[in-house]
Amino acid sequence: MPRYPELNKAITALPGAVFEKYRDLMTAKGDELVRLHIGDTYQAPAYQLPLDSSFMHTYPDFNRYCDTFGFGELRRLLSEKVNEDNAIDVDPDEILISCGATNALSAAVHSVLAPSEQIMLLTPCWPIFRGVALLAGADICEVPFFVKLYEEPDLDIMAHLEQFITDDTVALYLNAPNNPSGKVLNRNQIRQITAFARKHRLWLISDEAYEGLIYDGRELHSPASDKQISDQVVTVFTFSKIFMFAGMRLGYAVAKKDVIIAMNKVIVHQIYGAPTFTQQMMLEAVRRRREWMDGVRIYYQSLRDMFVDKLKISFHIPEATYFIFFRVSEDSAPEQYESLVRRCFDAGVSVAPGIDFGLDFKHYIRLCFTGEPPERLDLAIERLNSIFRSEGMS
Amino acid sequence: MPRYPELNKAITALPGAVFEKYRDLMTAKGDELVRLHIGDTYQAPAYQLPLDSSFMHTYPDFNRYCDTFGFGELRRLLSEKVNEDNAIDVDPDEILISCGATNALSAAVHSVLAPSEQIMLLTPCWPIFRGVALLAGADICEVPFFVKLYEEPDLDIMAHLEQFITDDTVALYLNAPNNPSGKVLNRNQIRQITAFARKHRLWLISDEAYEGLIYDGRELHSPASDKQISDQVVTVFTFSKIFMFAGMRLGYAVAKKDVIIAMNKVIVHQIYGAPTFTQQMMLEAVRRRREWMDGVRIYYQSLRDMFVDKLKISFHIPEATYFIFFRVSEDSAPEQYESLVRRCFDAGVSVAPGIDFGLDFKHYIRLCFTGEPPERLDLAIERLNSIFRSEGMS
Repeated sequence: MPRYPELNKAITALPGAVFEKYRDLMTAKGDELVRLHIGDTYQAPAYQLPLDSSFMHTYPDFNRYCDTFGFGELRRLLSEKVNEDNAIDVDPDEILISCGATNALSAAVHSVLAPSEQIMLLTPCWPIFRGVALLAGADICEVPFFVKLYEEPDLDIMAHLEQFITDDTVALYLNAPNNPSGKVLNRNQIRQITAFARKHRLWLISDEAYEGLIYDGRELHSPASDKQISDQVVTVFTFSKIFMFAGMRLGYAVAKKDVIIAMNKVIVHQIYGAPTFTQQMMLEAVRRRREWMDGVRIYYQSLRDMFVDKLKISFHIPEATYFIFFRVSEDSAPEQYESLVRRCFDAGVSVAPGIDFGLDFKHYIRLCFTGEPPERLDLAIERLNSIFRSEGMS
Repeated sequence: MPRYPELNKAITALPGAVFEKYRDLMTAKGDELVRLHIGDTYQAPAYQLPLDSSFMHTYPDFNRYCDTFGFGELRRLLSEKVNEDNAIDVDPDEILISCGATNALSAAVHSVLAPSEQIMLLTPCWPIFRGVALLAGADICEVPFFVKLYEEPDLDIMAHLEQFITDDTVALYLNAPNNPSGKVLNRNQIRQITAFARKHRLWLISDEAYEGLIYDGRELHSPASDKQISDQVVTVFTFSKIFMFAGMRLGYAVAKKDVIIAMNKVIVHQIYGAPTFTQQMMLEAVRRRREWMDGVRIYYQSLRDMFVDKLKISFHIPEATYFIFFRVSEDSAPEQYESLVRRCFDAGVSVAPGIDFGLDFKHYIRLCFTGEPPERLDLAIERLNSIFRSEGMS
């Protein structure tokens, strides 16, 4: 049996936080670097936190443990929100509060998959999910999907997914609105995915972190809003995106009660429970969301339009999220790709390498258009245009 | 392969939050119930949170992601604190911030043990740890320890532990100051444990959540303060006990850098990182800890003295923590135990059943003397004395 100083090899083999490999390069550049690699917002939250001493009088238990399923009042408010905004029929006890959407996704994977069972990932997708699944011992099967949908809007989704199913497939991870591609699925596309999940009795983990950040009048169609499939869906939302409170690390899952109870067991043994204090801080933000949500979406859409207009390179215009995702080199030229990424950093723009989003995207780059203020964004665009022009890409 | 609606049996077999089994009983009793079952504080924190709008100006990034290892300034302050208060020699990059001590312990177990490797638990101990280890796939070996130390202060610890070591043992969990027994280990006792860990090259996970809540002039001796063993120790601290901020869910681990890096990988895939906002809220609490820590300890000691004085039953006087732990029935009488616990609840006092703290403690009860204000505590003592008197225990 390996003992000290040996560590668990399955853990040391995991990736660290994404972008770790460029940490030194980023540190060296300091403030000169315009950071387009991370999904974040440069703005103060649209909802102003109740930061005054009356808060402690209203919530005298703010410093104590609360129900590990979540603070009761927040669960109740979120069940209303999910009913109204997402058309998913839920009770408060079908809501589980977590430490960020990451925590809810981790709890979901542990609960529906045993080690060595397989989960299908529709890619490209949120890079941390791969490690979330590996930590739970899951086997991963990647299915290229979202970029393909831009290229083939009428793709026969059922037939496409059927090529990848195996006897070991137990769950499917759907990250739509999609990070990094910005793709939004229409009702018909969602229906094909849920039909596939029903046919094969797959658990569907629906990561809807980017709800609210959907542009041009498109709508979010949550798989769980369809009662034929809702029992086998775990839907995950977050306070990090449209709510603009990534620093609070709060998210929540919506699922049938037996799944919520299993997921709570995971969360109890990972963190005990989400912070009472931050949950209470978010109550008014949920209650008053209609006052500020549209403004955030409209502003982010204008940032996208500005970015799309100025960046002189061809890519699919994102329908949602705060990213653009595009191919920068040919399949045959890995050195060309590496050198291009490095030139972006050297020129003072951090970018996220495509490989993190799926094995099929090693020639892609993701940029975030909301993490830096417009004047800094302009500077980044200028630097990028100059690089892409010299590469003959614009 | 089991698919929907089957869940992962290893997860559904986990216990939920402790005390779940008495949830209905507790709900039925409502406000009449004096809650002595959970480890918490009835008091507002000694350190006043900086809840005013200037906070957002001082920390404009409060709503954004921060370094997944922890907010830089907090890591630096905590490394000073650990050097000064715990006599452990650390750098800031040997500190990892987590969502409660639970999260740090989970990351530690995942990092040092692979599934099916064994961890020794010195019992009785913090009940959630068992599930933390099971979630990581660890095998558990319980070693009755802390109550034995009250009974045999000169126990040959090395010889005692040797009886339980197996070829599969990779780590040892030491929860001292001990929840639930209140035992504090002296320097000689710690030395025997570290000698044992060194001899067998065991990782030592030292849960020191109750640092600071140590009475009668006793001192905490952290195993990692001994340089001969420090490389193989993960020490875990929390903001939930002496800091009185359980509702913030913040803790931290101290370990060598390669262990911290592995643990960070676990945390990234469980929660991404601890909340920026709450970490920033705790900066001043750490800086100014000497202004209020002694006061909390002295007050808690006075609550212990009052409790010990009034409760008419025999038990070992706790040397630390906010619990007393005592045997209430003979080994031969499980029904007698169950009926006694139920009578406590029926009389309006919630208690924590001993079995949660270790398989050898199914005839014990744990009470917390800081979770309710003194007048409510008096009421609870009166009710308990009446039950114990009629049982012939006082």
